[in-house]
Formats: sequence, structure tokens, C-alpha cells
Amino acid sequence: MKTFNIEPLSKNIEEGLKHKIGFKTKPLGALGQLEKIALQIGLVQNTLSPELKNPHIVVFAGDHGITNEGVSAYPQEVTFQMVMNFINGGAAINVFCKQNKINLKVVDAGVNYIFPHGLNVVDSKIGMGTKSFLQEPAMTIKEAQKCIDRGSVIVNEIYKSGCNVIGFGEMGIGNTSSASVLMSLLCNIPIDNCVGKGTGLDSEGINKKIEILSLAIKKQGNPDTILKTLATYGGFEIAQICGAMLQAAENKMTILVDGFIATSAFLVASKINSGILDYAIFCHQSNEKGHALMLGHLGADPLMKLDMRLGEGTGCAIAYPVIQSAVAFLNEMASFERAGVSNKEEVSVNA
Amino acid sequence: MKTFNIEPLSKNIEEGLKHKIGFKTKPLGALGQLEKIALQIGLVQNTLSPELKNPHIVVFAGDHGITNEGVSAYPQEVTFQMVMNFINGGAAINVFCKQNKINLKVVDAGVNYIFPHGLNVVDSKIGMGTKSFLQEPAMTIKEAQKCIDRGSVIVNEIYKSGCNVIGFGEMGIGNTSSASVLMSLLCNIPIDNCVGKGTGLDSEGINKKIEILSLAIKKQGNPDTILKTLATYGGFEIAQICGAMLQAAENKMTILVDGFIATSAFLVASKINSGILDYAIFCHQSNEKGHALMLGHLGADPLMKLDMRLGEGTGCAIAYPVIQSAVAFLNEMASFERAGVSNKEEVSVNA
Repeated sequence: MKTFNIEPLSKNIEEGLKHKIGFKTKPLGALGQLEKIALQIGLVQNTLSPELKNPHIVVFAGDHGITNEGVSAYPQEVTFQMVMNFINGGAAINVFCKQNKINLKVVDAGVNYIFPHGLNVVDSKIGMGTKSFLQEPAMTIKEAQKCIDRGSVIVNEIYKSGCNVIGFGEMGIGNTSSASVLMSLLCNIPIDNCVGKGTGLDSEGINKKIEILSLAIKKQGNPDTILKTLATYGGFEIAQICGAMLQAAENKMTILVDGFIATSAFLVASKINSGILDYAIFCHQSNEKGHALMLGHLGADPLMKLDMRLGEGTGCAIAYPVIQSAVAFLNEMASFERAGVSNKEEVSVNA
Repeated sequence: MKTFNIEPLSKNIEEGLKHKIGFKTKPLGALGQLEKIALQIGLVQNTLSPELKNPHIVVFAGDHGITNEGVSAYPQEVTFQMVMNFINGGAAINVFCKQNKINLKVVDAGVNYIFPHGLNVVDSKIGMGTKSFLQEPAMTIKEAQKCIDRGSVIVNEIYKSGCNVIGFGEMGIGNTSSASVLMSLLCNIPIDNCVGKGTGLDSEGINKKIEILSLAIKKQGNPDTILKTLATYGGFEIAQICGAMLQAAENKMTILVDGFIATSAFLVASKINSGILDYAIFCHQSNEKGHALMLGHLGADPLMKLDMRLGEGTGCAIAYPVIQSAVAFLNEMASFERAGVSNKEEVSVNA
């Protein structure tokens, strides 16, 4: 498996960026989170004039053996049906990517369906879905390693096309179950607080899901390495996103982190290499129960909170224009001096 | 003064809209606030396929006599300097409107400066700034009425150009003082809870501001009509925005409500005609202290909370792409049936 060399952000232009942000024609700090993002992207790109180039969202899809145990409100075939919907342009992520001029790529990381040749889907299939981790580990260590490597290769391809900002989405019926267990073990939070309604369970369904996941944890235990944890409870899409995110950070790309499942992949990535945190923008706090807690564990301050809980990378796509706004004000707004506007507590500088 | 005839939303397509939203390829409710906005705009336009046409943000600028009493961190001339900055394209609102393809109009509602002819600013000047309401009413009842009418005329002009979605911004050193008093009296909330740092007061400055505004309320009292309250404590820009918003609702336009000051204008408008509430989208909860409370009084659920406190309509401009997303998913996403995706708890419909 590849190891990732993620450089800490160079701080040599931090003062310059803060000065540039502070002297725009607005009260100090008045653009709130946009100012933080402008600073972060400036540091990531190590320039006073950052640019967002050739934005991408990559949706990784995979199936989950755990769906056999009755943890989801939807049947497993919805995974491949939704991938077809992505390919045909009919899903929410298609609409939002089109609106915001984001390139969308769909990856078959391990869907339980053979897609015909010629479809616009990247073949990165590890298998026809994971095993049920109530019975045995979801995948082997070797498969988990392969996922990390595959995610890395996919991001490098996109990077070569000139992309420097990338978000990750997912589709996989049952994958909130994987994300909940990963969260519980890696954040040390009781499973009850990590389980939500997923695609739409009622309270009875949620209780059953908690019961099944508790039993699974009892049977498979809490592995002593991150990679084993990922292999035991993860999904092919989650593991590939993890590798993809690590590669994006190594490439000094800005990483857009989506909802509950994508954040669980990020969580795993951050335990492999915590340097990734500097490169991440947390786009949307999902309505899925555990997400706020998981973001809290990561020290993340999400940009938006629109009560969405759809996945697919929709939070990244919706938040992208706000991130563009942050870069735009940094590059395009006038400074007090240039505009002839008096700064705080000064008398007019141009009258 | 004009009276406004605001029709309640027709509910005859509500079921149709809910059905259309519910059968998109996503779990029920999974697009959260976007679904609420899609429903609202559908109802406002009375169609299953709403469109956002020729979006505008209108920034009204005016000066405030109360600045003579030392309530602001910036000198009064910043108002005209910032209007010049708007005209020259250097302010935050220029950058965000350009980014999101929103038409920007700047209105001189009563700036203490004579703008040379030929500049791209709408002349709607009522006077060279209001009087200090620590000493006397900020404006006469007649002036307040004139403001309402002027705002209405400006919106009708824009409406005729084919616009159906409009946001309002403001610029006026000292206008958080007006907004705080209007809020305190109209929401019946103690003035201490309505005063924040404005453009950047420290805690000493905030205490002084509270003291001055308390004294002003003691001297001028709590008038027995909305119009008198607006005249006594308002600003030319606030009063014109109030009329502009009422006209927009009468025209069945979607109204984008910005931050603390714009919301205070909306508050006044809602006390004149509560029907306006159906037409409003609250874009951003400002970092200015009183805004959350004012939004609470209005029962508003703001789209974003980015810690901004800049005014100018920046909250509307930043939120606009999210509102576009709401309309886009309603019009462009596939339904379960069309996409051949199994709905919840059904078995595959297309396999």
C-alpha cells in the first residue's frame, strides 16, 4: 500500500494573506467564515492570489453485505440503480454539479452489478459488494490496501487534468452502518450515538440497526490498527475515498468533505495521516444523527447546515459557490487604500 | 402613501408540488431546507416548474444623524465612500453579484453627499441624512411615507424588466442603531439585547451605544403607529427598503432578506402587512448580536450562518446559488419512476 507524504502548510505567507484580507473594504472580520476559507486556500496553494481550477466531485459507489441483516430502509439494488441515475444525469448531484460547473466522475468501487461496457463509470471494482461484518470482516486487509491505492490513482488522474479542488461523494445502500461503526471505534463514542435513520428508518428500524451493529462489534472486536478497522467494518467506496483524500492532500489540493459517510472516510484518513486536516473544508453538517459529533471530534466547523442527508457529494456541490466567493473576495475586492475609503477610527483618507 | 395588496399564497398546487418533491430520486426529505424553498417558490409563482428570472439586489444607502452621538466605529463619510466603491465595482457585494450573475443596483436614499451626474446610482434622495433621533425624530411622517413610495417605484421598475427574485442590501454608517431601536420597540425586546458591535465597536463602545439608544427611546418614546416608529427611529434607506419589500410581495416576487438592518426593514414591513412573510427567504443569520433574536421573532429559519456581518446584501448574494439549487432540483432531477429506482420498502421496479 502506498504511504502518503502530506506536507504541513507553509506559513511564510500567512501574514501577507491576513494583511490582504484585513485591508479589504469591509470591517475587520466582517466576512466571517469566508475569511477563514480564503486564508486556508491561500495557505494550501501558498499564494496571495489562489485560484480554484477544474473542480471535481468524484462519487464512489459500493455495496455492503450488512444490508442482508436488515439495516436499511431501501433494498440493495438501489445502489446500482442510483449509479445508473448518476450516469443518466438524473440525480441531485448531477443537477448541482451542472449548476455550479463542477466535473462529476462516478466510480464503481464495488457495486453488486456488472455495468455494461461503454458507460461513463470508472471501473475500480474490488468485488461484488463487501461481506456482512456481522458474520466476518467486510473485506480482507489486502482489499482495503487495494482500495487505498485505487483511490490514489483516480485522484492522480484528475490532478493531472489541472484540478486543484476536489470533493468526494458516495452511494451505497447500507453504508451508514459502516460509517457508524468506524465512527464509534475511531472516536470512542458509544454506537448508540453514532446511529441515525440513514435513508429513512423509523425508530424501530434504528433500534434494530443499533442492535445489529452492537452485536457485530462484539463479534469482530476493536482491531488494533486503523487498516484492520477499515477492512473489518468499512466499504469499498469508503476505503477508496479514504485513499483518494490522502492523495489529494499529498497533491496539495483543497479537499471538500461532504456528509456522514464521506466524513467517516476522512476520519479514517486523518487517523492514517493527520496532516490531511489542513487541506479539508467541511462543507455541510448532515441531518444524519452522528455527523455533528463526528465533526466535533475532528474539530471541524462546517460551512452549512441545511438539514440535508443525501450523500452523493451534494453538500460539497451546494457549498462550492460559497468557497468560490471566498476566493473571489480575496482576489477581486478593493482595499481601503485603492477605493479611497476611510478605515476604522481614521479620518477620511481621500477627502 | 401607497397601501399594498399582498395576496396570500394560493394553495391549490401545494399537494402537486409536495408530490413532485417527494418522488424525486432521494429519500423523503433528504434535501432538507432546499425542499422547503422549492415548495415556497413554487407556491409564490403558483407553478410546479418555477423559474428564477433576472435576479436583482438593490443596495439602498443613507446617512444617519445619530452618528453625531458617537455610536459607530467608522466616520459618516464612509457611507458615500462605500457608495463610490459600489459604483466602481470594488465592494464585496459587487464581487458576489458578479460571481452569481445577479444584477446590482445602488440607490442614494439619502446620503450626506451630492453624487455627480452620470454616475450609476439611482437618485432617490430624501435628504442629506436623517436627524439625530437623540435630539428629534429622524425624519417626518411625510418623509417616511415618501420613502415607502420611492421604494415601491424602484421595485416596480425592476419588476417590469422581468425580474421575479429580488434581494435588498444597505449601506449607512450608524444604521445598526436605527435597526436596534426598531427591533426593540417592534419586538418588545430590551434594547440591551438588540445592540451589537455594528461595524466593530469594542465593549466600551457597545455600552456607550446602549446608553445613547436608551436615552433616545426615553426622550422620543414608543410611538403608537408603525409609521411613526419608522419615522422617529428609522433611516431613509431602511424606510425605502421597507416600501420596496412590500411592493415586491405585492408583485409576487421572491424576496431575499439579508442581515440585521435589512431584516429590521422587513420587520417594519411585516407589521404593516404580515402577508409579506410568505414571500420571504431569510438568507443569512448575521453575526450582529440582535439578528438571531429578530429572526426568532419573525419565525424565520435562515439558510446560512457564516458569521458574516457586512450588510450590503452580501448574505443574499452568497445564498442565491443555494436558492437556485432548490429550483434546479425541482425542475431537473429525475423521479423514481423515470429513473427506474426502487422507492423505499418496495422491491425493484425495473429489474
